[in-house]
Amino acid sequence: MALSSWVSVAKDSHFSIENIPFGIISTEDNPKPRPATAIGDYALDLEAFAAGNGFSGLSTIQPHQAVFSEPVLNAFGSLGKPIHSAVRRYLQSVLAKDGPFPDVLEKNEALQKKSLIRLDKVRNHLPFKIGDYTDFYVGLNHAENCSRIMRGIGSLNPNYRQLPVGYHGRASSVVVSGTPIQRPSGQILEKPGDQLPIFSHCRKLDFELELGCFICKPNEMGRPINIDEALDHLFGVVMMNDWSARDIQAWEMAPLGPFNAKNFGTTISPWVVTMEALEPFRTAGIENDQSILPYLRQNTDKTVYDIHLTVDLQTAKGGKLKVTETSSRNLLFSFEQMLAHHTVGGCPFNTGDLIGSGTISGKGDPSTFGALLEQTENGKVSLKLNNGEERTFLLDGDTVTFRGVCDNGSGNLVGFGECSGTIQPAFNFDQAYFSR
Amino acid sequence: MALSSWVSVAKDSHFSIENIPFGIISTEDNPKPRPATAIGDYALDLEAFAAGNGFSGLSTIQPHQAVFSEPVLNAFGSLGKPIHSAVRRYLQSVLAKDGPFPDVLEKNEALQKKSLIRLDKVRNHLPFKIGDYTDFYVGLNHAENCSRIMRGIGSLNPNYRQLPVGYHGRASSVVVSGTPIQRPSGQILEKPGDQLPIFSHCRKLDFELELGCFICKPNEMGRPINIDEALDHLFGVVMMNDWSARDIQAWEMAPLGPFNAKNFGTTISPWVVTMEALEPFRTAGIENDQSILPYLRQNTDKTVYDIHLTVDLQTAKGGKLKVTETSSRNLLFSFEQMLAHHTVGGCPFNTGDLIGSGTISGKGDPSTFGALLEQTENGKVSLKLNNGEERTFLLDGDTVTFRGVCDNGSGNLVGFGECSGTIQPAFNFDQAYFSR
Repeated sequence: MALSSWVSVAKDSHFSIENIPFGIISTEDNPKPRPATAIGDYALDLEAFAAGNGFSGLSTIQPHQAVFSEPVLNAFGSLGKPIHSAVRRYLQSVLAKDGPFPDVLEKNEALQKKSLIRLDKVRNHLPFKIGDYTDFYVGLNHAENCSRIMRGIGSLNPNYRQLPVGYHGRASSVVVSGTPIQRPSGQILEKPGDQLPIFSHCRKLDFELELGCFICKPNEMGRPINIDEALDHLFGVVMMNDWSARDIQAWEMAPLGPFNAKNFGTTISPWVVTMEALEPFRTAGIENDQSILPYLRQNTDKTVYDIHLTVDLQTAKGGKLKVTETSSRNLLFSFEQMLAHHTVGGCPFNTGDLIGSGTISGKGDPSTFGALLEQTENGKVSLKLNNGEERTFLLDGDTVTFRGVCDNGSGNLVGFGECSGTIQPAFNFDQAYFSR
Repeated sequence: MALSSWVSVAKDSHFSIENIPFGIISTEDNPKPRPATAIGDYALDLEAFAAGNGFSGLSTIQPHQAVFSEPVLNAFGSLGKPIHSAVRRYLQSVLAKDGPFPDVLEKNEALQKKSLIRLDKVRNHLPFKIGDYTDFYVGLNHAENCSRIMRGIGSLNPNYRQLPVGYHGRASSVVVSGTPIQRPSGQILEKPGDQLPIFSHCRKLDFELELGCFICKPNEMGRPINIDEALDHLFGVVMMNDWSARDIQAWEMAPLGPFNAKNFGTTISPWVVTMEALEPFRTAGIENDQSILPYLRQNTDKTVYDIHLTVDLQTAKGGKLKVTETSSRNLLFSFEQMLAHHTVGGCPFNTGDLIGSGTISGKGDPSTFGALLEQTENGKVSLKLNNGEERTFLLDGDTVTFRGVCDNGSGNLVGFGECSGTIQPAFNFDQAYFSR
């Protein structure tokens, strides 16, 4: 029989007892950011829970409880996966109906009052202090669409199926869901065939539907991570919107890759869903029709996760559209493969580093594509909203919301909540910028 | 008359009284990393100097002296350039012959004993905790050489003269001079024309002669830095070796840029030379034959620095060669322009962020080129060493040392010391990596 909780959890809640994600919250009463988990419509404040002797039944965490007073999850992450697992399973048992520890919280109204907070009263913060952020490009269908639309090339580069293609991103620009995203400005070519750029706000602002994965175990510089051990380094997964300025990108990206087209903001969902919670949803990714080198071979075919992903657009005028519906299985390489490749030359990782999957698109049907670039063929096709509005790219005031959820019919969903951002007008450059 | 110090400073010392760079040191007696400056053959331990009431003559720093007990310069950097300047000028006056504060250090043998440490007794550490690291590519001569050699294209991309081309690097892989550099392994094409890669240690290991610049003033996400204010955000400059694996790079870099070819190690010199110390050496860079957009226009033609740069190679067998001799004026854009461009779309910077110039090469004469790729035409031409050894790319045991120094004939040099690294053999992948 499926686990259930004495905390009421709606059937469609992303935060069933099978989830137990980790995040950082603050509240009006207590503005200090601190670790928490989510259950149903509630956050469980882990600092308050620890202070109220909530971990009395879990001796392994007791010497380390200071991690629950940190403003980020890095210290908790550094404790290692056996301890993350013990904490998650203990919290499940504390929250379980007819569980072994009813006195800890279920029958302890004083501690409930101190530690259970309605999610709508909670402010979320970035879960980790991110040292380095790398974005991969392993959504094969997306890569094929981009190659055709942006570069007019029908086939991918020869390296594409041999290695997880990626680039270093900008850690300082990663923000938590709900943070407004300002339309960037920069150099663009006004018309196809122009030789010189103009300065303009971005006219082709896009989202990219991705997953992100946080690292919890470092490797020293010069010490590659063996693919068989890569999972030990992976803490958990978030939804990620790698906002993209397609016109800036088209002009700037040759030969060193995207730069200002991507570093103005990347949004992640606040609750990190552990690899352990995702384990039941493992599945095969996109089949690779090439043989890969041994250092990238995994000992399972179930290398990725079947997370049901949606993208919703809402405009300032109330227009709505479900833009995308797809599955995160549309990836050619796994996070384990990305990490094994990223470190094979000796690149060091630290706890809190973030790796992104690249945009996830289904095959064929445009409504499964994870970016407007692909859905609109770079602006050639308009999407119709319910109120008659149309979109090729994002306008100011548009809100883009990603959701991701795993459902294996147990009655307990494992989901990510929302990854959302609203577009703000471009920075108002005054004449001082243009006086020369 | 030129300033001179009561501390003996050799004529060829990089650390004259006109320099006063900042760095982080530790010693055998006191292994705690802490801020220092360098003068002649000595480091002045600023924690010990502050503790010994050394800053008695500078009231502005007194409320902030805790910054000199930090293991990195980020807190000092955050105080802002007026305070950096006041500290530098005060230290100059304390160290000056016939200066206004003889009692502080010159006649205070007890404090000299505690705070002046011979540089050969000092261990250097990374000067800043680096949040994000970006590497630009604004050495025009290098870019032209690379374009021809790596991609067989005679001309640069249309964007090259319009914007400082750059890419996000890997902050975790930046190390201080003296740190061994392990030869990376990864995917390479064995022969030209091969369709599939092999797994191998890098066979084309190279250096790249660059300058790096540390940021000391943040900007909020969404708030571009006006080029007229960019200098306020620049703390100082280091020499930088962006070690590069040319064979890995050639296979991996299309379309998103270099990745594992660069993230296995980047070496910087330990002493950060302030923009103020470099100010007398400002000069014009490479002339841009295109008109640039107003947000990149500076109110001076003297946008870069004339630093005399050398690269020395020493092998395990004692072979020696001065590989490169050139000037840092060989740049198309300045650090101010790089920062204005990097933030124009809203990308946020934090104190301690690092930006690299890209490889600096002179024009025409191969002995002015800042990378072996260019000097050897990608391995076609051998360099001869003094003992009969030859090199196309770096072999294990090779030590590469960059030096940079400014000399305006005053008798006081402003230099960077050394930026040095020795190549270690590749990681020994055991059969576990190749068993499948």
